[in-house]
Amino acid sequence: MLGGWQGRVARPSPPPPHFLTSLLHFASPPPHHFASSPPRHFHTSPLQSDRCELTSKRYRIERGKYSQVSEAHLQFFRDLLGPHRAIVGEDELERHNMDWMGSVRGASPLLLRPTTTREVSSILTYCNQHNLAVCPQGGNTGIVGGSVPVFDEVIVSTSLMNQVESVDTWSGVVTCQAGCVLEALDQHVAQFGLIIPLDLGAKGSCQIGGNVSTNAGGLRVLRYGGLHGSVLGLEAVLASGEVMDCLSTVKKDNTGYDLKHLFIGSEGTLGIVTKVAISCPPRPAAVNLAFLGLSSFEDTLSTYKSARSQLGEILSSFELIDCVGLDSVEEKLKLKSPIAKHPFYVLVETSGSNADHDEEKLHNFLNGVLKTGVVKDGTVVTEPSRMAEVWSLRERVYEALMMDGYTYEHDISLPLPVFYKMVEDMRRHLGSDIVRCCGFGHMGDGNLHLIVTARQFDEDVLNRIVPTLFEWTAQHKGSISAEHGLGLKKRNYIHYSKSEASIRLMKQVKQLMDPKGILNPYKVLPEEKMK
Amino acid sequence: MLGGWQGRVARPSPPPPHFLTSLLHFASPPPHHFASSPPRHFHTSPLQSDRCELTSKRYRIERGKYSQVSEAHLQFFRDLLGPHRAIVGEDELERHNMDWMGSVRGASPLLLRPTTTREVSSILTYCNQHNLAVCPQGGNTGIVGGSVPVFDEVIVSTSLMNQVESVDTWSGVVTCQAGCVLEALDQHVAQFGLIIPLDLGAKGSCQIGGNVSTNAGGLRVLRYGGLHGSVLGLEAVLASGEVMDCLSTVKKDNTGYDLKHLFIGSEGTLGIVTKVAISCPPRPAAVNLAFLGLSSFEDTLSTYKSARSQLGEILSSFELIDCVGLDSVEEKLKLKSPIAKHPFYVLVETSGSNADHDEEKLHNFLNGVLKTGVVKDGTVVTEPSRMAEVWSLRERVYEALMMDGYTYEHDISLPLPVFYKMVEDMRRHLGSDIVRCCGFGHMGDGNLHLIVTARQFDEDVLNRIVPTLFEWTAQHKGSISAEHGLGLKKRNYIHYSKSEASIRLMKQVKQLMDPKGILNPYKVLPEEKMK
Repeated sequence: MLGGWQGRVARPSPPPPHFLTSLLHFASPPPHHFASSPPRHFHTSPLQSDRCELTSKRYRIERGKYSQVSEAHLQFFRDLLGPHRAIVGEDELERHNMDWMGSVRGASPLLLRPTTTREVSSILTYCNQHNLAVCPQGGNTGIVGGSVPVFDEVIVSTSLMNQVESVDTWSGVVTCQAGCVLEALDQHVAQFGLIIPLDLGAKGSCQIGGNVSTNAGGLRVLRYGGLHGSVLGLEAVLASGEVMDCLSTVKKDNTGYDLKHLFIGSEGTLGIVTKVAISCPPRPAAVNLAFLGLSSFEDTLSTYKSARSQLGEILSSFELIDCVGLDSVEEKLKLKSPIAKHPFYVLVETSGSNADHDEEKLHNFLNGVLKTGVVKDGTVVTEPSRMAEVWSLRERVYEALMMDGYTYEHDISLPLPVFYKMVEDMRRHLGSDIVRCCGFGHMGDGNLHLIVTARQFDEDVLNRIVPTLFEWTAQHKGSISAEHGLGLKKRNYIHYSKSEASIRLMKQVKQLMDPKGILNPYKVLPEEKMK
Repeated sequence: MLGGWQGRVARPSPPPPHFLTSLLHFASPPPHHFASSPPRHFHTSPLQSDRCELTSKRYRIERGKYSQVSEAHLQFFRDLLGPHRAIVGEDELERHNMDWMGSVRGASPLLLRPTTTREVSSILTYCNQHNLAVCPQGGNTGIVGGSVPVFDEVIVSTSLMNQVESVDTWSGVVTCQAGCVLEALDQHVAQFGLIIPLDLGAKGSCQIGGNVSTNAGGLRVLRYGGLHGSVLGLEAVLASGEVMDCLSTVKKDNTGYDLKHLFIGSEGTLGIVTKVAISCPPRPAAVNLAFLGLSSFEDTLSTYKSARSQLGEILSSFELIDCVGLDSVEEKLKLKSPIAKHPFYVLVETSGSNADHDEEKLHNFLNGVLKTGVVKDGTVVTEPSRMAEVWSLRERVYEALMMDGYTYEHDISLPLPVFYKMVEDMRRHLGSDIVRCCGFGHMGDGNLHLIVTARQFDEDVLNRIVPTLFEWTAQHKGSISAEHGLGLKKRNYIHYSKSEASIRLMKQVKQLMDPKGILNPYKVLPEEKMK
């Protein structure tokens, strides 16, 4: 139905009227769906797992004064859940004690798999009474060590809490349990012409409760905003076992303090999210994806400005990959870029309700950026499987980089004018001590993923990256964690993004809501200095 | 440039291709800009002001154990701010001691007008030390008595804190002081092709700090979402005088608990918002407004569903007015509807980046709803002054209703299928004891304004409306305050929308952040039962 278009450097002639095309230049079929994030069936990276020492050792953490799980405790949980949902055994717990990258490892002796809010409440009531520390866990797809125990915390997994309770098709609201896998939930609401306003590489494994607890961002924040806007309500169980019902399903509710926000992004340290209600926009009828090559970061900035003004309400993603990232996916994963090599690449996605209109807007936008020469080359795809191929160039960058050996991963927010300067400065700063320094990410949200790779973990390299990176970020009024959270790995750097007064109030809120500190200890809030 | 179109009941023939039109059928020019909300220059409604007794008397409230403002206190504030920003005198304070409707009245002896965060901090430090209660006040455009003192609280007005600090044109972020008037702020960002994602009738008077503190909703939540999504950061001064810097300007920041949300919608009871940073979308290049007449509420539902699917990303408002409301603006304000009488009317607004595309989408939508007969009549306007005229039919409903004498105003959220049933049930329930019972509001957000009018205030009528209305709302899982907040008037009904556990946690948060309870007492949280 649609014709073909390939922009070319020297001839910025306007594309023909019907220029949108399925992508013809992919050399090989995409491999099994893996994306940049953990697969449905968990395997740690073979290159990283063998060097994954215990988190407590690597990060020199002192165990809190919690009880240890005893036979009596175990019996209580077996009586509550039955033997198949109160699980012990090193092998059985292996994938729950370690993150998918093999970068953090705990030693929990017990995994609990409740199916109802009531069971979560009983578990926490008991743990609080018996001073047992708890690590809440969803799909365990996090990056900062937030969803894995550090010592012997009891793991409370929401995996079996995967029921959709209702879909309000009038207003577009889905209400479901926390353990629903993001992709499955999106497929569910698709039947009703709706879309979950959140999409990320880990969608096949991550759970909506975990997404909410970490305030996950992903690919379409530019279009749909973040979860503080789209979560209408939630239910959470406090450390005491008390059920906090903030499960409003209306779009506006100004009755008192909006407590649900305390649970969005607090990474399970203030409560375990058990249900959520999410506002779902109409599912777009038309989606287009353009993959563009550019000569400089300045040109990506101009392109973004044009996209924002010309694509307006249909702009749904604006993603950056530098040549280091694209070279990696070509070299390590044998994916092939549809266009020739350039210093920078951007993916521009549009989503709208009218294919012809979107096509014309995209045409006008591309015409403009080609004419002015800020875009040198590009291709447009509309067929879903071809779009998935192009998306995999972006989504699998991290996976490719991991194959260098060890990755130092950082996820920061920066003002756009200095968005990529950070990568260049870091590259110079680290010199030849590393394999690569790559920058990619959600440029439309000001969210950069900066990845440094090396053959293996080296504390000296880590110390050269951190805190330099955070100081730089703070100087430029960025955030040291845009969307991944603080978890374990970044908690002691919180002061680079938050004021002393804020951190003090956070600690007071934690003390108020979880006085014994049983919920996800060693995470989010900075380590207390020993007295 | 554009042709004319008037849909007609009996002939749902498709409109001609170029059907968008400036509105030709307005009988009289619009009156001086007044909207449904307080004018820039404050006058209480003459019909209501004479019966505005003291709030403490009408609502039988007991004064908290706060100090009274003494000469020594006054001297401190005069030394801090100078004589012209520490104001005394009944006349000078009149418009600050009463709301614009004349429905609540306090007796503050002192109005403070700081210009900087540092001054707010000094004021609160002093008030906290000396146990002086404080009423923060922005534009004083609230409906629920939240921005007016109840007894002799010191009024801290943000009116002079009206500086825009910066506009990030790359990402579309404005950072400003709390006292910026919404309309002026919007005009400021318009220079940069941006729009403030918030619009409401009171825009000429309300201040952005007050908007944020009450989590104001308004006309375009349907398109841009609420303030929890679009406020990127804020600065607030706590009761202790401590400055809480949560003034992030990046779109994503997952570093610890997102404390700013505590100040959004807590109506000044947890802190005084002094600065805000707001994400501003590109200003739409094209805006269209359709005014439609319908025979039944079921038809408005069908029309909404069509609008949502066919207008998709350009749908920016979907507002309902019932015939009671429209008759009132015609009768009391001498405005004239551009179409014949119908039981229901909806305003459908589109905002987009391409006028031709929007026009075509709107055409297709209107064609569909005319063909199926769910819409009986309608007109479309695109010229700004004509759009303002049509908007005034919606925005001035409340003003017209006030002219009946006394209004019992309620702002609730309901699931769409029962959205209007509430009005019909209430009309039957109240019978002939009232003048009118009117329903209108932000239907696209599920937000109904239900207004009962009478010749004068009658406690018996109030008691027949409340708690019946709230019980009904709670049974249907709605919210008893969609966008106006709880303030003074609704605080004791909070349990209809919030669980016991939630209310308990709210009180604990209040106790944590304002242990002496000096900030906006008698508001939001329910009255403590006397022991």
